[in-house]
Amino acid sequence: MKVSKENNGIKIAYIGGGSKSWAWGFMSDLYLEKDICGEVMLYDIDKEAALRNEKIGNSIPDNNFVYKTAESLKESLTGADFVIISILPGTFDEMESDVHAPEEYGIYQSVGDTTGPGGILRAVRAIPMYIEIAQAIEKYSPNAWVINYTNPMSMCVETLYKVFPKIKAFGSCHEVFFEQKIMCEILKEFLGIEGVDRHEIKTNIIGLNHFTWINKATYKNIDIMPLYKKFAEKYKDEGYYSEAIKVVSTLAVYAPSNKGASKLRIDLFRYFGIVAAAGDRHLAEFCPGYWYLKDPETVEKWGFFLTTVDYRRKLDKMRMEKAKRLASGKEKFEIIPTGEEGVHQIKALMGLGDIVTNVNLPNVGQISNMEHERVVETNAYFTADKVTPCIAGDLPPGIHAMVTRVSDGYRQVVDSCLARDLNGCLPAFINDPLVTIPHTQAEELFWKMVENTGKYLDYYKK
Amino acid sequence: MKVSKENNGIKIAYIGGGSKSWAWGFMSDLYLEKDICGEVMLYDIDKEAALRNEKIGNSIPDNNFVYKTAESLKESLTGADFVIISILPGTFDEMESDVHAPEEYGIYQSVGDTTGPGGILRAVRAIPMYIEIAQAIEKYSPNAWVINYTNPMSMCVETLYKVFPKIKAFGSCHEVFFEQKIMCEILKEFLGIEGVDRHEIKTNIIGLNHFTWINKATYKNIDIMPLYKKFAEKYKDEGYYSEAIKVVSTLAVYAPSNKGASKLRIDLFRYFGIVAAAGDRHLAEFCPGYWYLKDPETVEKWGFFLTTVDYRRKLDKMRMEKAKRLASGKEKFEIIPTGEEGVHQIKALMGLGDIVTNVNLPNVGQISNMEHERVVETNAYFTADKVTPCIAGDLPPGIHAMVTRVSDGYRQVVDSCLARDLNGCLPAFINDPLVTIPHTQAEELFWKMVENTGKYLDYYKK
Amino acid sequence: MKVSKENNGIKIAYIGGGSKSWAWGFMSDLYLEKDICGEVMLYDIDKEAALRNEKIGNSIPDNNFVYKTAESLKESLTGADFVIISILPGTFDEMESDVHAPEEYGIYQSVGDTTGPGGILRAVRAIPMYIEIAQAIEKYSPNAWVINYTNPMSMCVETLYKVFPKIKAFGSCHEVFFEQKIMCEILKEFLGIEGVDRHEIKTNIIGLNHFTWINKATYKNIDIMPLYKKFAEKYKDEGYYSEAIKVVSTLAVYAPSNKGASKLRIDLFRYFGIVAAAGDRHLAEFCPGYWYLKDPETVEKWGFFLTTVDYRRKLDKMRMEKAKRLASGKEKFEIIPTGEEGVHQIKALMGLGDIVTNVNLPNVGQISNMEHERVVETNAYFTADKVTPCIAGDLPPGIHAMVTRVSDGYRQVVDSCLARDLNGCLPAFINDPLVTIPHTQAEELFWKMVENTGKYLDYYKK
Amino acid sequence: MKVSKENNGIKIAYIGGGSKSWAWGFMSDLYLEKDICGEVMLYDIDKEAALRNEKIGNSIPDNNFVYKTAESLKESLTGADFVIISILPGTFDEMESDVHAPEEYGIYQSVGDTTGPGGILRAVRAIPMYIEIAQAIEKYSPNAWVINYTNPMSMCVETLYKVFPKIKAFGSCHEVFFEQKIMCEILKEFLGIEGVDRHEIKTNIIGLNHFTWINKATYKNIDIMPLYKKFAEKYKDEGYYSEAIKVVSTLAVYAPSNKGASKLRIDLFRYFGIVAAAGDRHLAEFCPGYWYLKDPETVEKWGFFLTTVDYRRKLDKMRMEKAKRLASGKEKFEIIPTGEEGVHQIKALMGLGDIVTNVNLPNVGQISNMEHERVVETNAYFTADKVTPCIAGDLPPGIHAMVTRVSDGYRQVVDSCLARDLNGCLPAFINDPLVTIPHTQAEELFWKMVENTGKYLDYYKK
Repeated sequence: MKVSKENNGIKIAYIGGGSKSWAWGFMSDLYLEKDICGEVMLYDIDKEAALRNEKIGNSIPDNNFVYKTAESLKESLTGADFVIISILPGTFDEMESDVHAPEEYGIYQSVGDTTGPGGILRAVRAIPMYIEIAQAIEKYSPNAWVINYTNPMSMCVETLYKVFPKIKAFGSCHEVFFEQKIMCEILKEFLGIEGVDRHEIKTNIIGLNHFTWINKATYKNIDIMPLYKKFAEKYKDEGYYSEAIKVVSTLAVYAPSNKGASKLRIDLFRYFGIVAAAGDRHLAEFCPGYWYLKDPETVEKWGFFLTTVDYRRKLDKMRMEKAKRLASGKEKFEIIPTGEEGVHQIKALMGLGDIVTNVNLPNVGQISNMEHERVVETNAYFTADKVTPCIAGDLPPGIHAMVTRVSDGYRQVVDSCLARDLNGCLPAFINDPLVTIPHTQAEELFWKMVENTGKYLDYYKK
Repeated sequence: MKVSKENNGIKIAYIGGGSKSWAWGFMSDLYLEKDICGEVMLYDIDKEAALRNEKIGNSIPDNNFVYKTAESLKESLTGADFVIISILPGTFDEMESDVHAPEEYGIYQSVGDTTGPGGILRAVRAIPMYIEIAQAIEKYSPNAWVINYTNPMSMCVETLYKVFPKIKAFGSCHEVFFEQKIMCEILKEFLGIEGVDRHEIKTNIIGLNHFTWINKATYKNIDIMPLYKKFAEKYKDEGYYSEAIKVVSTLAVYAPSNKGASKLRIDLFRYFGIVAAAGDRHLAEFCPGYWYLKDPETVEKWGFFLTTVDYRRKLDKMRMEKAKRLASGKEKFEIIPTGEEGVHQIKALMGLGDIVTNVNLPNVGQISNMEHERVVETNAYFTADKVTPCIAGDLPPGIHAMVTRVSDGYRQVVDSCLARDLNGCLPAFINDPLVTIPHTQAEELFWKMVENTGKYLDYYKK
Repeated sequence: MKVSKENNGIKIAYIGGGSKSWAWGFMSDLYLEKDICGEVMLYDIDKEAALRNEKIGNSIPDNNFVYKTAESLKESLTGADFVIISILPGTFDEMESDVHAPEEYGIYQSVGDTTGPGGILRAVRAIPMYIEIAQAIEKYSPNAWVINYTNPMSMCVETLYKVFPKIKAFGSCHEVFFEQKIMCEILKEFLGIEGVDRHEIKTNIIGLNHFTWINKATYKNIDIMPLYKKFAEKYKDEGYYSEAIKVVSTLAVYAPSNKGASKLRIDLFRYFGIVAAAGDRHLAEFCPGYWYLKDPETVEKWGFFLTTVDYRRKLDKMRMEKAKRLASGKEKFEIIPTGEEGVHQIKALMGLGDIVTNVNLPNVGQISNMEHERVVETNAYFTADKVTPCIAGDLPPGIHAMVTRVSDGYRQVVDSCLARDLNGCLPAFINDPLVTIPHTQAEELFWKMVENTGKYLDYYKK
Repeated sequence: MKVSKENNGIKIAYIGGGSKSWAWGFMSDLYLEKDICGEVMLYDIDKEAALRNEKIGNSIPDNNFVYKTAESLKESLTGADFVIISILPGTFDEMESDVHAPEEYGIYQSVGDTTGPGGILRAVRAIPMYIEIAQAIEKYSPNAWVINYTNPMSMCVETLYKVFPKIKAFGSCHEVFFEQKIMCEILKEFLGIEGVDRHEIKTNIIGLNHFTWINKATYKNIDIMPLYKKFAEKYKDEGYYSEAIKVVSTLAVYAPSNKGASKLRIDLFRYFGIVAAAGDRHLAEFCPGYWYLKDPETVEKWGFFLTTVDYRRKLDKMRMEKAKRLASGKEKFEIIPTGEEGVHQIKALMGLGDIVTNVNLPNVGQISNMEHERVVETNAYFTADKVTPCIAGDLPPGIHAMVTRVSDGYRQVVDSCLARDLNGCLPAFINDPLVTIPHTQAEELFWKMVENTGKYLDYYKK
């Protein structure tokens, strides 16, 4: 890492630098860290979006970071100490197909960007982009640390490592934090302990991104697991409406506030005995489709919701308007810390304070009973220029089976896409837990979805 | 192995020695091997059945083996060189529940003794029996070679090893042989080569019992895989009616002869690129239920059939009558070689001719991408007092996921039953590929099935 | 861990509680941690020694810990939250044989308690004691955290886990700290950075106890490895006399102050490219005997020294006198912090502040290219009631070979001793790097040494 | 494998085709297999030698194989079904240094071509040649089966796989056969059983080439291990002069017939409890140098001998003369079967009869407690176009340590040479069991030996 003695002058390449809410949050977090400074090189295939964010970033007074727009991937990466990847693989039109085309076959998805038919097709689009990015990093910034935020997280990170095995990359995600915040609420409710920060909750993280689990959680010397049992029994019927989740949902105009009952979280705990550390909308997609996603009524009954692409479009439109107002100076950029770990991770990698936090990395033994190379989510220890995975142990029976089913699919998709062989994705597709239809129909659906997203699949035609 | 210098005088303990067709086949095979002799000690909880078989065995003229009935497990095992286990865990009443209780929930099973709800419940009954057997073997015949024929094969063998880790046991099954016979038919049909014996087909076997695969097959220097592709294309619509299977079906009064179209065999080859080496009725049960076992119409369409317990009862009745006729001398015992490997395996273990054949053993590396300890089916090399697994390599993507899903379930069932914790079987049950209903309903079904088979579950109440 | 809400009232069992310098250091460290309190239950087969320490501990004014003497292992362990094991396996008479008997065969040892003939024989004596301790812990305090300080560290800890696999034990050692302190000195010398504390040096620890290595070291964002190269080049001929080591040596009346030149440390770095993080006297014993321990002249040339048992006896005598003065009140107990991590580890396990530090644990993947179960030294992350090993990666070639040679020996010694089969230790003994004599002579030496230590080997005669 | 339907017309590329005794033995073996035919394409950097062998091969009447001389590696490989590699890496001048240069440092070697300083330097010369060969095979005959006979076997085969991972290569060696023949002699001597062929002895083979072990051996149902114990006790003092070894030694003018006492074989059995299946001259080189190779007197005492390069030169001269006589027709080529497995392996790979025999292959699990990728020797099952390793299990303690020490060295040498980094071989060299001198002297010796063999090291200068 080329950082000056005073830890100044770091260069951050931001791929997908035209992003709306993500980029703004990152700008806020960077701004707040007063002991680092440098430049952020925004790169986006939508150059105008990047230019807008350049303006927004530079509009912040007393900012320790300068924002610039790069003409090319090469320009953004050259000399970078850190690379952020946060892109949208395709447009809402493709996402429309990802999420809603399967509905014609009775397959419902609550998110559609991580796993299931939607996640697989999104990967099919994203992998060629990630191949290009990984090759560019190998060429222009092989020593940079790369932080991925894009979904499907596991497949994106696995692609980076398969293309450039010496890459220093990891995936970062906030889903687990909400579970830690719920644990703070549990401490308050069941023991009357107030004011606990989620960082004070020590958890053993184990699983896949968005299907992550906690099998040990303590606050000081208090074992939280027995409290969680009480919590689950208390709320198993009505559901639990977490303050932490409500706040976020409102901020993000994310969902009707009466949703997000954490019923799946609770239900899965009751079946498997350990804590599911992701939102219900994500958890549902890793279980057999007939459990929680059978049809809209079932989803309703379980107290979560299907995120439609229409809804995403509306949200995006609002953000676009805000972006324009911010870029033009009509609205002042407001500094709001995101609670994300990204900037702390960057600081730790610069030698400015160790942290232990959860990240997505290829398995090298951190999950004992999973294949190596699969990208998994566990804790890791961040020190200067080093991310050391902590050993999370074994996935318990039941969860191991569910994780392997999906993770095996990820491997097939990544390997097949790298080999430019879309056909090779079929076994993953027909065996996906959400694809609860005869495999012959599933095959039909797969090729339809491929066609829908065809504009982005030139790579496979070569 | 305590065998005299002339390889005479071996003692075989036959647990489940009152069995009907299996025992008779074994008697035939033993009779035909004129260079070995000894005694077979029949043990059965239905002592009358054992006595009947004693009579039948001893009615064979010029027999090199003497048949006796043991009063106890201890008596049968003491001094044994070989132990055969071929038992029925429970009665047809319990099997009635195994196979048909799930139908009320829309779950159809074509066999119901290996995996799926039926296989799991059968394991729940069988495991306490296998614990007892393994403990008795450790005590009375720790150096004997143990051959298991009982289903669910994998879970029975895994239990033997978990209870008595130094046991010299393996599971033996003939499903793969039919595939090898089909390959003989393919050689005839596509290359005009006649008279090939299945032993001349060299195959690399990999998978689980009843979900076994062949990824390399040769006859002399001919690679059979490209022929198999032609075969699959030719018969994919109409199905293929193998002579070999027809013969067996007729002999066993097994099924209407117009069934057994091998359509699944062919379909799975087309999706996964390697050969599925088991009968369609078995293969169907390892795939998601909505593929081939959605409902009786789907089964009909795919050209296989559901084996009802009524049908089994009728078959058993016929066999019982035959048993009585044979025991009373009203019918003469007919020597018919079974084509099984059991007796050849015994001879090889006695130092009378090496063989390489497929067996079920705990994984110690023979399948590279599966957990150790799981019982898998691959080739092994049999020499005097030794079974050496051959390395079968990696399961290909897709199949690996399907195998792991079921095999993980096996592990959970075995471990939970050993811990006398029926509750621990639930994750396996709700995640089983055939259990295509909401997990909450699946739980209800599980406990109903437990109740139906309650008579055999005293072990868990302790 | 049974700790009250206020983290008061912990109970520490101290096995070997009559120890001299170790116990006093521990008392100092405990005294200084004002936010914990409780009782320390001293147990020693030399009860008088324990009673002396009881008096010494209780003589400290304003002490938050009370010291008591237990009548039995059972009494000391019952109710314990933590167990410290710091014993001398045998007496100086046995150590006399460990260290000096091999000299008659031309085998010199600089310490003789970790590996080599001395380490093996010490293990032969210690293992029966550790079997007893592990069984007692399983019985009386199965949930206690157990910290081992006794050598031979790896074999002692491996024995604990083999006897009671669910034990929560680890081994703690300070050798690595000196290397971190040398790195602080290097920062000062080569970059002019003063006042760095060793805790600010972030290191990746990998290896065996006393043959531990550092392959990554940073201070803030400074990579120390290139500095270490300069350091090694500069001091390769004259040796380097570390201030940190000098201070300790003087305090401990450890050795003539002109020794301790760190020449081996430097030499090994030059051959293997990574940093050897233990004292020269220890490092020498893991290399082939003809490298550094050929004869006293070679030792002299390499600037380290042979620790004779005579010297140890003298030191012990001085300590005994001090013990008497302290116990009788003739001398006031002086609080001197040891710089050990023991008490910090205890606090972290109580939920009072996470730390990452190096410990000895059975390998579960923290060293990727070593067998599981072998006790290795790497970093681990300490949180409430949990020690999570960090993944240290691969041992580099060359070091891997040397580590495996010794570690394989450890396994053999532990397994053979557990099986009460002294003969089984022979392959380890004749293949030890220090045993550079024909194996037939080595066998003779082994049995002589066994005889010399016979008083402690009743266990093997049963 | 491109073999015609009648198994005719195979093409064998013979690299090192100018070889003397090896090539002639191979010609004999090929001649005797009347059901195969084809052409052998001889390639040698000494083209004259190849031409001589072409003449010799074609002088055999009624030969089913035609011999030709290839102008280039490319020509020899193009279209090959099988590739034999049997080369001399360098000349006797280089071997002179390999074997005798270390003697100046007191290091004696009995063979000097497998391990030890000689084996390492020979590898340093051979690896660039093997890189070239592997690249050529990848280019011109990627589907051919490659049989290596050259030493150092393990490093040559490991290089082939590292350069061209999909190569279908294995190493073949006859050392183990002598042990099987000794077992036949044991059956005769202790049980009076005559006329047993070594193929009837079933052995579990485990280890490295020339340091191979047998931990299970049976003849029919007779366990040979207890007999071996009697054998070892009987001959431990006087040594045992095997008929089988004598015959070979005489044929090969190999050594004074009073040598070859098998004392090491017997001694190692007594220490480690399993059978060492290689000649004493080889076994000695894997043990610490001070065991059997301390000095010429020690060698004498243990009843084996040091093979000098002078002796090899004499032998070669005799063979050269014979070669000339044979090529000129002055002497008639005599068909003498070698007892090697090479031609049987070729036939098995052509689908003409399965065999199980010992081969050298990268570990993929056949030895459970060794790293994958290391080239190990175990049994494998040969069928058409497939070599399936059999699982040999665990190396026992003690032997595991000795094997790992050498095998780790092999890995370092291969990896360093592939990286053109001779310096990287040093850790392997100074840690070699025969290099029983201070590492600083060993380094000096290493560079001297490198200089001696410099003519062949252009590869490293690039």
